[in-house]
Amino acid sequence: MYDIRGLNEECGVFGIFNHPQASELTYIALHSLQHRGQEGAGIVCSNGEFLFGARGMGLLTEALSKEQMMSLDTFPHAIGHVRYATTGGSELSNVQPFLFKSHKGDLGLAHNGNLVNALSIREALEDDGAIFQTSSDSEVLAHLIRKNKSPDKKQRIKTALRQLKGAFAFVILDEDSLTIALDDHGVRPLMLGMVDDAYCVASETCAFTAIGADYIRDIEPGELITLNEQGIEFDHYTDVSKPNLCSMEYIYFARADSEFRSTSTYTIRKSLGQQLAREMDIDADIVIGVPDSSLAAAKGFSEASGVPQEQGLIKNRYVGRTFISKGQEARERAVRMKLSPVRDVVEGKRVIVIDDSIVRGTTSRFIVKALKKAGAKEVHMGVSSPPLKNPCFYGIDVSTHAEIIASAKSTEEIRDEIGADSLTYLSVDAMHDVYYSYGSKGQCDACFTGNYPIEIIDRLLPQEKDLKTKGV
Amino acid sequence: MYDIRGLNEECGVFGIFNHPQASELTYIALHSLQHRGQEGAGIVCSNGEFLFGARGMGLLTEALSKEQMMSLDTFPHAIGHVRYATTGGSELSNVQPFLFKSHKGDLGLAHNGNLVNALSIREALEDDGAIFQTSSDSEVLAHLIRKNKSPDKKQRIKTALRQLKGAFAFVILDEDSLTIALDDHGVRPLMLGMVDDAYCVASETCAFTAIGADYIRDIEPGELITLNEQGIEFDHYTDVSKPNLCSMEYIYFARADSEFRSTSTYTIRKSLGQQLAREMDIDADIVIGVPDSSLAAAKGFSEASGVPQEQGLIKNRYVGRTFISKGQEARERAVRMKLSPVRDVVEGKRVIVIDDSIVRGTTSRFIVKALKKAGAKEVHMGVSSPPLKNPCFYGIDVSTHAEIIASAKSTEEIRDEIGADSLTYLSVDAMHDVYYSYGSKGQCDACFTGNYPIEIIDRLLPQEKDLKTKGV
Amino acid sequence: MYDIRGLNEECGVFGIFNHPQASELTYIALHSLQHRGQEGAGIVCSNGEFLFGARGMGLLTEALSKEQMMSLDTFPHAIGHVRYATTGGSELSNVQPFLFKSHKGDLGLAHNGNLVNALSIREALEDDGAIFQTSSDSEVLAHLIRKNKSPDKKQRIKTALRQLKGAFAFVILDEDSLTIALDDHGVRPLMLGMVDDAYCVASETCAFTAIGADYIRDIEPGELITLNEQGIEFDHYTDVSKPNLCSMEYIYFARADSEFRSTSTYTIRKSLGQQLAREMDIDADIVIGVPDSSLAAAKGFSEASGVPQEQGLIKNRYVGRTFISKGQEARERAVRMKLSPVRDVVEGKRVIVIDDSIVRGTTSRFIVKALKKAGAKEVHMGVSSPPLKNPCFYGIDVSTHAEIIASAKSTEEIRDEIGADSLTYLSVDAMHDVYYSYGSKGQCDACFTGNYPIEIIDRLLPQEKDLKTKGV
Amino acid sequence: MYDIRGLNEECGVFGIFNHPQASELTYIALHSLQHRGQEGAGIVCSNGEFLFGARGMGLLTEALSKEQMMSLDTFPHAIGHVRYATTGGSELSNVQPFLFKSHKGDLGLAHNGNLVNALSIREALEDDGAIFQTSSDSEVLAHLIRKNKSPDKKQRIKTALRQLKGAFAFVILDEDSLTIALDDHGVRPLMLGMVDDAYCVASETCAFTAIGADYIRDIEPGELITLNEQGIEFDHYTDVSKPNLCSMEYIYFARADSEFRSTSTYTIRKSLGQQLAREMDIDADIVIGVPDSSLAAAKGFSEASGVPQEQGLIKNRYVGRTFISKGQEARERAVRMKLSPVRDVVEGKRVIVIDDSIVRGTTSRFIVKALKKAGAKEVHMGVSSPPLKNPCFYGIDVSTHAEIIASAKSTEEIRDEIGADSLTYLSVDAMHDVYYSYGSKGQCDACFTGNYPIEIIDRLLPQEKDLKTKGV
Repeated sequence: MYDIRGLNEECGVFGIFNHPQASELTYIALHSLQHRGQEGAGIVCSNGEFLFGARGMGLLTEALSKEQMMSLDTFPHAIGHVRYATTGGSELSNVQPFLFKSHKGDLGLAHNGNLVNALSIREALEDDGAIFQTSSDSEVLAHLIRKNKSPDKKQRIKTALRQLKGAFAFVILDEDSLTIALDDHGVRPLMLGMVDDAYCVASETCAFTAIGADYIRDIEPGELITLNEQGIEFDHYTDVSKPNLCSMEYIYFARADSEFRSTSTYTIRKSLGQQLAREMDIDADIVIGVPDSSLAAAKGFSEASGVPQEQGLIKNRYVGRTFISKGQEARERAVRMKLSPVRDVVEGKRVIVIDDSIVRGTTSRFIVKALKKAGAKEVHMGVSSPPLKNPCFYGIDVSTHAEIIASAKSTEEIRDEIGADSLTYLSVDAMHDVYYSYGSKGQCDACFTGNYPIEIIDRLLPQEKDLKTKGV
Repeated sequence: MYDIRGLNEECGVFGIFNHPQASELTYIALHSLQHRGQEGAGIVCSNGEFLFGARGMGLLTEALSKEQMMSLDTFPHAIGHVRYATTGGSELSNVQPFLFKSHKGDLGLAHNGNLVNALSIREALEDDGAIFQTSSDSEVLAHLIRKNKSPDKKQRIKTALRQLKGAFAFVILDEDSLTIALDDHGVRPLMLGMVDDAYCVASETCAFTAIGADYIRDIEPGELITLNEQGIEFDHYTDVSKPNLCSMEYIYFARADSEFRSTSTYTIRKSLGQQLAREMDIDADIVIGVPDSSLAAAKGFSEASGVPQEQGLIKNRYVGRTFISKGQEARERAVRMKLSPVRDVVEGKRVIVIDDSIVRGTTSRFIVKALKKAGAKEVHMGVSSPPLKNPCFYGIDVSTHAEIIASAKSTEEIRDEIGADSLTYLSVDAMHDVYYSYGSKGQCDACFTGNYPIEIIDRLLPQEKDLKTKGV
Repeated sequence: MYDIRGLNEECGVFGIFNHPQASELTYIALHSLQHRGQEGAGIVCSNGEFLFGARGMGLLTEALSKEQMMSLDTFPHAIGHVRYATTGGSELSNVQPFLFKSHKGDLGLAHNGNLVNALSIREALEDDGAIFQTSSDSEVLAHLIRKNKSPDKKQRIKTALRQLKGAFAFVILDEDSLTIALDDHGVRPLMLGMVDDAYCVASETCAFTAIGADYIRDIEPGELITLNEQGIEFDHYTDVSKPNLCSMEYIYFARADSEFRSTSTYTIRKSLGQQLAREMDIDADIVIGVPDSSLAAAKGFSEASGVPQEQGLIKNRYVGRTFISKGQEARERAVRMKLSPVRDVVEGKRVIVIDDSIVRGTTSRFIVKALKKAGAKEVHMGVSSPPLKNPCFYGIDVSTHAEIIASAKSTEEIRDEIGADSLTYLSVDAMHDVYYSYGSKGQCDACFTGNYPIEIIDRLLPQEKDLKTKGV
Repeated sequence: MYDIRGLNEECGVFGIFNHPQASELTYIALHSLQHRGQEGAGIVCSNGEFLFGARGMGLLTEALSKEQMMSLDTFPHAIGHVRYATTGGSELSNVQPFLFKSHKGDLGLAHNGNLVNALSIREALEDDGAIFQTSSDSEVLAHLIRKNKSPDKKQRIKTALRQLKGAFAFVILDEDSLTIALDDHGVRPLMLGMVDDAYCVASETCAFTAIGADYIRDIEPGELITLNEQGIEFDHYTDVSKPNLCSMEYIYFARADSEFRSTSTYTIRKSLGQQLAREMDIDADIVIGVPDSSLAAAKGFSEASGVPQEQGLIKNRYVGRTFISKGQEARERAVRMKLSPVRDVVEGKRVIVIDDSIVRGTTSRFIVKALKKAGAKEVHMGVSSPPLKNPCFYGIDVSTHAEIIASAKSTEEIRDEIGADSLTYLSVDAMHDVYYSYGSKGQCDACFTGNYPIEIIDRLLPQEKDLKTKGV
């Protein structure tokens, strides 16, 4: 099917320590994090003596069989991972959690984010004789921990983490402890929860709801948490940290019921829609959100503008790889298979459509066309985020510059290309105002502004990196 | 996964005649009808000389491979089918369209609905030496057509159709013609469309939107349409007909953008919600629709009552068979994996939840519980249809009497069981008022009232019938 | 892989009645009959009340899973079938035993052989309204039985069998009886055995050895045996019969340990080799049999001629579809992958190679070439059967006339084409002498002589028939 | 299926440098080496710039798809590997050739044999920070090469090889060279060949026959051969070597047409059978070899004793996992499914059965029983090798001591257990006489005598080693 969206999250992680249903809860939690990655999934468990793991390609329900889950049944500690789908370079060997066996002890590792100096570290380690198993940047942490000669396990991990640059939320399991680490900019989300007296950690709080856990708090930039038989130990691997949570988590990635600092992204998205309404002075009969991620922003827009919200676009719930012929006509059909207008809702109406972002413009163009074909008199496009202009090096698979429509075109040129009667983006300031109002202490906005908060050491996009290191 | 809903549609059909991309359009159309059946899918094509088919188990994208689709590429006539998932008795041999080869000419056949005298006919045919290939009621039509000695093809079909009792929308393809037939009560929907000068037929108009076809009109009860090289011929196989379209198509099955007599089910559902608001006098802070099918009713409720609508429940988009342990605690987790409340939306609020129907009550009970756990002060349940009390013999897999909560319990007993602060169903009269206002000339309401418009000859539920006839 | 042989058997059958391990014994028996068919396998069982079946594509071990076998575990009556591999036209729906369900009672059916009037019967039945499920000729028998109105089951079967022309060994299972029938020429072998007081029937006696059964006797042409709770009943469905057992069963198909009238094919093949030695006056140092089927003939040749037998050709035991590039060089490699000379055995020697038959000549040509490359001074080819010249209509997939080398070429031309220093075929008379000496009362030799003992009504080769009737 | 044999070879290797059909020839060669390993297969190719590989589980034809082979089509250098089947511990990650990617250059590696100090080396490397990917002993070589800082590639390999103890035939491919190494005892066979001016290397010469290559000579113990664009370079990695080729290669493993020092194992096995005849003074009517590996020894026995050889046992060519119930009766059936007597050959005869070895005795016991049931008057068992008493640490998966019947029982006790009328083993001296007569300069006979020529550092059997290191 035509990839008519250009944003892909790079994973979700989960961990739990000392719970009799550890693997089952991890499975349920990963299911709720499935929107963060559909390429592969895995679980690594510990029984206090050794680690055991299972992983597979595809959705969780395809990746892990009932037999595999039953084999993990009695292990009280577990970490899990869902991995996003890139084009092509997907292999089982890259599906996490990684499990490294050694006579010195086993190590399980799952990572959300992207390191920006992994290649440099990897080359240095290879020069010293190390052999890497995967083309994943995440593997360097295991090597750095193993190479360290310190007798103190926590010290080995701290020293290793300090060598990493970039975005990372790590969960690391060995026989008798679970270590949780968030990079010093806190680019990716990581949440602490508790279920039946057992601590757990997840990329989003929706995982806590799914397993019936309580949401304790957001893990801080630079924080290092250790869980073992003695209990929980809070620490930091670095003294220097600067919050820079990814703005796209609020705008698009996180599930609407997931919370950040106790506010749901649903509420934040509604506020973004309200702000957009204030910046977009258009007279219209109805406002329509592009399902599902933009319904909240449309709701906020409706509240602030007084224009009634209607369900004017329907999304086909059944997706998957479909086979259709090539060409422009076929591209049109691809979008038609995904989104349909509700004719009697839009016919004769001046319509405002709210979308959370525009990447390549393909979807927007077809939404405008479809609504007009269904009888809309006017179609105005409102985007509840600023123009997306720059690639991400911290863990989001935005397509390259060339594919991002706003990197080369003005708002008016984009409006013209998508055929809308008007096009309004939310301003960067208004976006930050919303985040600030909900307690944010700093957000990464590099994809909008080009201000990368962490220096890019190895200037490689995910797909380029893959080519350099892919094995059998 | 726990089956927390008890209603399953029995299929969707599509047909197209004389279009160069017949098989591709059929594939796209079936994709848009996927909500009507996920057990299996198939396509049978004709090139004017012989028929060729492909079918498989599972979703369309699993059932038909790219290679199979390419092999059908040049055939100008096609019919297609999606089949619903029963518990257990699913086999490839029952996936439609059926394709019967004979030296007298091939016959492809797809059926939506359920016959109520199929078993009687089958036994009579078997007594006469016929051998059946499937456990499907649909196969009897092929035998009846083949047994008929009339030299006129249309006459053979008419005579055969007149022997059938029950609900059926048939598309029948032979080498050089496509025949479309709807039962004399018009229980199942069937729509006529046109794309690029080629006529097409579909269970719902959303298929027309998907392929870019124009929606012409609803096919009438008892109508028989023949498409061949000479063009289209409109006829009726019977002079007696009485409209009795399934009410559940409006309430639950049809996609929100699908239209009946040029009105979308979205609009009809909004009206059902408005009527419910008039019959349900409850003070509340917010109204929430159970996603996705009840969002329209909640919107109507909000408009009529003035209570603001919020997105207070989020549905996990990733479903599929999951493996979790047994017991009451596990059942709770199963629902948690599917639906989650948005805490900061519902906390401290008096909430009205709108659902389109209650079958077993399992989901309702957990929605109430989850919203209260998330902090809702009160949870009132409004159902935008009357109490569902009776099984369906016309093509919907409602579970048996014993499983339908309203067949044995009063509204107050149900309210108590699901734990809601109040429970209000829409009245049967109010429901019919809505249908009448949108031009309905008669609706089947047997599942609510027990008034079955077509006599039940073989009183067998689908699952029982299956056991009687299942082959290798 | 290049099909370097042109003869394929058309199946093996097995049946057993009233044994507590009926399905397991059937499985083991089919495993021993696997050489008769590798395309698919199946088992149909009865528990006295209804029939249940399982079947699949490929070798027995692929076709039937452990779960399937366990589901058949408790059924006391069973029939089984292995099916041969044609090029292309293979489908699960053609894999036997067929299982026909009806309210009048179920019917399982497995067939070895080929009918020569199946198409004519089928067309007549279709004209009368019958619908066929498969493209197999075997299905007509089920229709003929079902159409018959006689109240007596055995009479229905007898009447149906009398309408069939051609070669058939049938095993037919209904709820409470097993019927065994052999055509009036006895073209295909069918053997009666007994294990633990239960009668069983098999295409070859090697199945009896495998399950520990005793071999009772060969079933006679025209014989009809019925097994039910009352015991065994011996009858004939026709008074006229004329033995014409397929010569190729002795020469090539049957396993070396299988017996006909209490003589193993190993012994018969040795005699054919002895006769060949008498007709082939060549001085040589060693005689080599082409493994495996010609080792016995080579042994006989060695005994009669005094030339020592050596293992000069080794067969690779691992076969299966391999992927190699096209062209003449690639064809050479294909044979090299299957057969290899033992260099130090043949180097400097005058070699006689014994093969049981030559179909296309491809293998012979490469054997001669390989032996000469390995150092053989002379290579003389002896064939322990007469020149194969005509296609078979009774159940053997000999390639068409055009592909059979001896149908157009003289022995000298063939010798020249395969590059041998001499080529000698066994004479037809000598072949019959051998059969006669072991008690044969008549053998079909149509593939050598063109004298077809049963008139060919529908002159179709298997592959042509398939095209006429193939379904979805 | 019951594992009725207890000997499994640990792999076969192949390599070729600078041939336009390198990958295809490797595929064909591996097909001819399939008897050395059926668990998995793989190929790694180089195009001079980087390495690319494909591997999979099962037989070659299952492990490598046509698409995979086509993707390797243009690479001029290749190595390949077939891996044997252990019980249980098989995983794709252990299938060779291994492919290690690095910015310093790629490395492909395939190994036949078993190291006896791999665990010690591995633990030392892990203490130094190395992370291993597999549970295979073969991986240590890659780490040793990578850790070495020498600027000279060949020197790095030599130094690494010198640290290894045990049996190994290695083929190592990097971008521009192929390195071939045989351990200093030459335990496993390794042969040099040439095809179309390109050098190749294989575990057995049958691979040369299959690809049309010429067999040049046996590679010597301690030899190190390098192939690159400059040509071939012959060297030794050590000055000290002592030939100790595995005796079981002659007796059982190697294919009958494979040659050692230009003599086929067929010829050697015949000589072992001749020697046995001299040591076994039994009067009999016929001698029978257990197919296939003992037919040559039986032939030699027949020549030396004058007792005529007959094919009295038939082997079912179709093997694979079968599902049969447990218990003693079922065990009998398992053997019956594999081997069958030819009744009219053995009935009333005094029979000598020649087998090449007895591991657990299961097969022997059932052969004796089956022949007697088929009517043999006497059954004498002759074994063409000495009693097998000790496990192997050099690459053969002999079962543990407890399972080897001769490790605890005397010949008379074994005879009694298998029920033979007599049992004669070949003497160790007679065995060595045969090898000596064909030019052997030293054979490992540890499994017969317990004299292990290479000290066992890590006393672990393969299955134990696996448990220590198995990963996800």
